[in-house]
Amino acid sequence: MKTPVVALLTDFSTRDWYVGSIRGVILARCPRAQLLDITHEVPPQDVVAGAFTLAAAAPWFPTGTVFVAVVDPGVGSDRALLAARADGRCFVGPDNGLLALALAKAKRCAAVRLTNRRYWLKEVSRTFQGRDIMAPVAAYLASGGSLDRLGPPLPRIVPLALPAVQRRGRSVYGQIVHIDAFGNLITNLPASLLEPGGGLTRAALRYQRQVARMVSSYADGRPQELLGLVNSQGWLELAIREGSAAWTFNAKRGDRVELAP
Amino acid sequence: MKTPVVALLTDFSTRDWYVGSIRGVILARCPRAQLLDITHEVPPQDVVAGAFTLAAAAPWFPTGTVFVAVVDPGVGSDRALLAARADGRCFVGPDNGLLALALAKAKRCAAVRLTNRRYWLKEVSRTFQGRDIMAPVAAYLASGGSLDRLGPPLPRIVPLALPAVQRRGRSVYGQIVHIDAFGNLITNLPASLLEPGGGLTRAALRYQRQVARMVSSYADGRPQELLGLVNSQGWLELAIREGSAAWTFNAKRGDRVELAP
Amino acid sequence: MKTPVVALLTDFSTRDWYVGSIRGVILARCPRAQLLDITHEVPPQDVVAGAFTLAAAAPWFPTGTVFVAVVDPGVGSDRALLAARADGRCFVGPDNGLLALALAKAKRCAAVRLTNRRYWLKEVSRTFQGRDIMAPVAAYLASGGSLDRLGPPLPRIVPLALPAVQRRGRSVYGQIVHIDAFGNLITNLPASLLEPGGGLTRAALRYQRQVARMVSSYADGRPQELLGLVNSQGWLELAIREGSAAWTFNAKRGDRVELAP
Repeated sequence: MKTPVVALLTDFSTRDWYVGSIRGVILARCPRAQLLDITHEVPPQDVVAGAFTLAAAAPWFPTGTVFVAVVDPGVGSDRALLAARADGRCFVGPDNGLLALALAKAKRCAAVRLTNRRYWLKEVSRTFQGRDIMAPVAAYLASGGSLDRLGPPLPRIVPLALPAVQRRGRSVYGQIVHIDAFGNLITNLPASLLEPGGGLTRAALRYQRQVARMVSSYADGRPQELLGLVNSQGWLELAIREGSAAWTFNAKRGDRVELAP
Repeated sequence: MKTPVVALLTDFSTRDWYVGSIRGVILARCPRAQLLDITHEVPPQDVVAGAFTLAAAAPWFPTGTVFVAVVDPGVGSDRALLAARADGRCFVGPDNGLLALALAKAKRCAAVRLTNRRYWLKEVSRTFQGRDIMAPVAAYLASGGSLDRLGPPLPRIVPLALPAVQRRGRSVYGQIVHIDAFGNLITNLPASLLEPGGGLTRAALRYQRQVARMVSSYADGRPQELLGLVNSQGWLELAIREGSAAWTFNAKRGDRVELAP
Repeated sequence: MKTPVVALLTDFSTRDWYVGSIRGVILARCPRAQLLDITHEVPPQDVVAGAFTLAAAAPWFPTGTVFVAVVDPGVGSDRALLAARADGRCFVGPDNGLLALALAKAKRCAAVRLTNRRYWLKEVSRTFQGRDIMAPVAAYLASGGSLDRLGPPLPRIVPLALPAVQRRGRSVYGQIVHIDAFGNLITNLPASLLEPGGGLTRAALRYQRQVARMVSSYADGRPQELLGLVNSQGWLELAIREGSAAWTFNAKRGDRVELAP
């Protein structure tokens, strides 16, 4: 019998009892589950960062994994909670764009709005729906439960409010959308721009008046040199070998990046 | 056969090898155990914060869970170590008040002092009893071991040294006892004060010359507005919607709060 | 059937999706594995700190545990990746000294260079070999796979570049090699120096013009007093009871320490 896997992503940090109580609720209702963390350090209430992180991690988990994602500035408001099944994986979270990137690539996807209180905790607080609604729903799905019973179909989920890539002349302008733990700067420019047909096979990546040298690996860089490369998720990234591009350039999310021929 | 669950709470942080070695010891002696974390980021040697956090998280875990809690300024001194069974859950930790809140609500509770070295590691260091004594004892309990064998009964455990709520005139004075990861300010004022019989059903919650508006959910707040609400554990809490009350008010643990009619 | 244990140590932090995707890859290929963390907060690219931490934690894990250690400034360069079996435990990581301390004490040790792409992910990025090579190799070993198939024998692994203890006159000079989560200062001076035969049974430990009082437990210290003691791993350590020696002395890794008769 297969071990059910439940993977968690939140902005709760692990400093408090929040994540622990979610783990407890899931395990009390699905004792065989293996609980794993993606991260609990999404910047507080940053739905965009959470969506990127979830979409980057989810494809590496086994089929059948149930993901619980909680980055939810609207907790207690009237935004919906949803559960979705996409290509054999399940996702539970608020309908605020957080799940949108992870669900976008699915070939088959069905979503429902969580309304059936039978699968929630008996007492539901207004401030902690992650524990009171999402955790027991995830445990139900991990135990082999049916999506249909959780509530009515949700024909369309809320998309993620993401900055668009802009073209002006022959250049493409993007921005830094994520700064990782090593200080690498991940942009919203997809690697496909550099491929045949992308129009920019021999492009220069510009940031703060510097031109990044395009390399295929961090190890190709020289000390303090700004590098451009395609990261393991397919996005263009700025980096410094054995250093932090974020510190060196005092980089911030939203900083503009130009890809020019 | 049920998977034994062992849940950990410490002030060790996860930066070091401490928690890893505790996990290893438990798993070496109870290979089927599922190890879960409540948190390892209790402020160093802060027994009060650890006690609140453990008491908040523990009820959500399944019956049979063994909790190992280590926040222990007195390691190596002559304070006792204890194990307790309370309403079907087991607790292992120092007898310094850390377990007191979690055990306080139990209907049935038995405690023993850890003295039987047979259930410890063969070599016991004086500085790391979490690994050398508490971890193997927890593994023994998780494997179905008997509390009685671990040592003699402990008739009375050390209570937690907590600030008391004070009444003056018609007001009740409490203080901030915990600041959570979102910057919400949790007080030692129980929600029962606001209930019929609590005498303050229409009370104002005052902090730093401001009066918090009592709401039932974060989402009811306006930008930058100080809110008062009952949190999911039953304590009065000060919060700012989509913001940090801790940052806005430069709040500190111990800050005074007044609940007035 | 025994549950396979896979223990992770990296410098990735848990803020990002990196560790989550490694967990996913291992679990997708070895669904019965229990995944545990030693730490993901090794200071970025600090191979020495990672080596100390791994060596300190590994002996406490059960026989059969597979360790995946990734602190790898040379990712994408031509340094080798290795897998080793030592006294019944397996280790997977870069051949840059990171595994050297953990393997040094083994009675029996066999190592191979990872070259057989059959056990890697199909697509291997140049920037994330932890996920693409080390994780699937670890899953293979945790599933009972054979070390020999992973690649050719590696007769000699790269040693760790560690500061040496120096003797001058009757004194022994070491340095702070690690500062733990409590601000305790761990040195590279082994406790054996204080044992009969070590020549310094009644030695004074000096740091920043202060002489630490040698005690056998933190609890023997007085407030603000600098203590010297043998920590649970057998290294001399400087500490302050219920305080942080690191903060009090503004200590840094590399600070000099003298052990004098």
